[in-house]
Amino acid sequence: MLVVKKFGGTSVGSLERIEAVAKRIQKDVQGGEKVVVVVSAMSGETNRLIGYAEHFSKLPSPKEMDMLLSSGEQVTSSLLSIALNALGVQATAMTGREAGILTDNSHTKARIESINNQPMLRALHEGKVVVVAGFQGINGSGDITTLGRGGSDLSAVAVAGAISADLCEIYTDVDGVYTTDPRITDKAKKLEKISYDEMLELASMGAKVLQSRSVEMAKKMKVKLVTRSSFNDNEGTLITDEEDIMEKPIVSGIAADKNQARVTLRGVADKPGIAAEIFNALAKAHINVDMIVQNMGKDGRANLGFTVPRTEVEQAKRALTEFHGDVENIDYDDTIVKISIVGVGMKSHSGVASKMFNTLAQSNINILMIATSEIKVSVIIEEKYTELAVRSLHSAYELDA
Amino acid sequence: MLVVKKFGGTSVGSLERIEAVAKRIQKDVQGGEKVVVVVSAMSGETNRLIGYAEHFSKLPSPKEMDMLLSSGEQVTSSLLSIALNALGVQATAMTGREAGILTDNSHTKARIESINNQPMLRALHEGKVVVVAGFQGINGSGDITTLGRGGSDLSAVAVAGAISADLCEIYTDVDGVYTTDPRITDKAKKLEKISYDEMLELASMGAKVLQSRSVEMAKKMKVKLVTRSSFNDNEGTLITDEEDIMEKPIVSGIAADKNQARVTLRGVADKPGIAAEIFNALAKAHINVDMIVQNMGKDGRANLGFTVPRTEVEQAKRALTEFHGDVENIDYDDTIVKISIVGVGMKSHSGVASKMFNTLAQSNINILMIATSEIKVSVIIEEKYTELAVRSLHSAYELDA
Repeated sequence: MLVVKKFGGTSVGSLERIEAVAKRIQKDVQGGEKVVVVVSAMSGETNRLIGYAEHFSKLPSPKEMDMLLSSGEQVTSSLLSIALNALGVQATAMTGREAGILTDNSHTKARIESINNQPMLRALHEGKVVVVAGFQGINGSGDITTLGRGGSDLSAVAVAGAISADLCEIYTDVDGVYTTDPRITDKAKKLEKISYDEMLELASMGAKVLQSRSVEMAKKMKVKLVTRSSFNDNEGTLITDEEDIMEKPIVSGIAADKNQARVTLRGVADKPGIAAEIFNALAKAHINVDMIVQNMGKDGRANLGFTVPRTEVEQAKRALTEFHGDVENIDYDDTIVKISIVGVGMKSHSGVASKMFNTLAQSNINILMIATSEIKVSVIIEEKYTELAVRSLHSAYELDA
Repeated sequence: MLVVKKFGGTSVGSLERIEAVAKRIQKDVQGGEKVVVVVSAMSGETNRLIGYAEHFSKLPSPKEMDMLLSSGEQVTSSLLSIALNALGVQATAMTGREAGILTDNSHTKARIESINNQPMLRALHEGKVVVVAGFQGINGSGDITTLGRGGSDLSAVAVAGAISADLCEIYTDVDGVYTTDPRITDKAKKLEKISYDEMLELASMGAKVLQSRSVEMAKKMKVKLVTRSSFNDNEGTLITDEEDIMEKPIVSGIAADKNQARVTLRGVADKPGIAAEIFNALAKAHINVDMIVQNMGKDGRANLGFTVPRTEVEQAKRALTEFHGDVENIDYDDTIVKISIVGVGMKSHSGVASKMFNTLAQSNINILMIATSEIKVSVIIEEKYTELAVRSLHSAYELDA
């Protein structure tokens, strides 16, 4: 079995941790696996280097920034390869360039364009473990590029796709994907399997196991992902194609996202183009608008509500002061939470959303906004009800362990 | 004027030092220079990385070691380039690979084979300062290699040769090359110029400004070297071809090398092959033998003396216990010093050596061994006379400032 294993910053955060990772790989290799490892920089290292650069400039030149930051993963991959060789496991370290990872030209947030899999396949063929520096590649001019946030996960998925690996294991400090945040209810249980689409909905809402970009790429390249812990031997969660999941749960998980604020525009003149004007103003200020709900008020005037990240409320206020359209008043509320239920089974089941509304009503929780997609129902409620809502829904959808 | 400037570890040992280097380069660029900078790792960084590797193995895999260590220079070159750009000086950072430095395959002590100067010339043509990570290159397979001790100096000299620079400036924490160690006499003065050959003789004897490898390469490639301090604006010492030095001093400098021990074999049977046997035994034990003096004793037996580094005396003892040739006794003395006078003018002047012997005799210093080359006379004397000998010779050869 050919497996790509990605170890994040905390998993390689010290020499002892690197040694533990080497021993884990040794065991897997002895068990018959062929292995490509993708590593992040040791935790803290990237921030140290960013701090160095910012000593000189608040906006350091992006090409140099990439050359600087890529050194972090270069160090980890050499060290892990040294540790493996010391254990008698033949290994060879590769920078992103040496692993054939070609990206576009967007320094500090490059996209992988292609991978020349020959160097990796050759080393695997020679019986070696390949240790690839994650987060990095080169552009068409041969300059080092980096992939931005979550970049090492992307490297791992792309490598797995390029060498047709049977599996791509993402090792972090958590055991896998849970039905909901275990800090909210001890009844949360780890999912054995979840579909790409469900994971995407969860990833976009604060289940921080994997970033959306990596899941999207895995889906596109049909790479089976497993997310598991590098600190124990527990089985993780398999993220795979919907077709690979026999029993499709109606609701797989419940997410609570507190990084939300609600903006309400009351008495918006009901004329063409006014919504466009409002959202143009926000887009110009680079504000990410999430849920949008519009309904009619009285006197031919509409109420328009939407959510923005809580950290962008002030910018939103500033952007909207420049909007002089016909609006009665604007209201901001950052004491709200977005609760979502996610499940591919929803597609073929009716009554999923109404069960959510009923459950919340029974707990006397008032719903402020509703938005739905094919496999997700999200509601905005007051933040203080977060735990109550999650626990009631977790139980209502029979997710309790 | 096209100038290569090399800054060593202490010259870029902190963010403040890197900033100071950037400002110095800014001034030189504003003064009309075209500049390629070669940098070492920040001081302490290479040792930190070696320590990491040795956590896993006393003999870490050399290929991985090179990938690991090369990150140190990669960090410095990106940071310096960021600092330059922040000052408004257009700069671009290059790893050894990106600067086109091709080496042989000897990981951790590679030799530069060729340099593709196109990337550097292109960037210079675009008006940029090129900041090259020293100490590194790639081998024919594209793997990162490092050049061993003094490697960044070698990078600088080779780059200067490859782009036909007018000058290669080596910045360290000392002002240049002195007539003798200023700690021994305050009459030591900085040399304005010195020939490659003289510098080679001085470099091999503990004048630690430059390593022999770099001077040899500079001589071969006809690169004019200047060694100067990065901590002040003093003029340094130009190291150049003998022909460029109008007035050839008889003696340019006086060196004292305390890292020496003397081995004396008395009553060696005077038959063919015996010296070869002795030195074979030492060579097998990887002991560097320096001065060798043989003369006849009585009864057809010879006395054979030589010097070894003081740190290798114990190994020499062990190597010679395995030598069972016909020798009366072996004597070891590590309380000696090697005093050398160096100067190209010796070639055309007689009486240089005898003035040395006379001067020492006037100070009642007994000479234990003598060795001469075309431009150097070395004597071994008792260590306690070091300062007296250097000061008398410094004055006798009219070097006093």
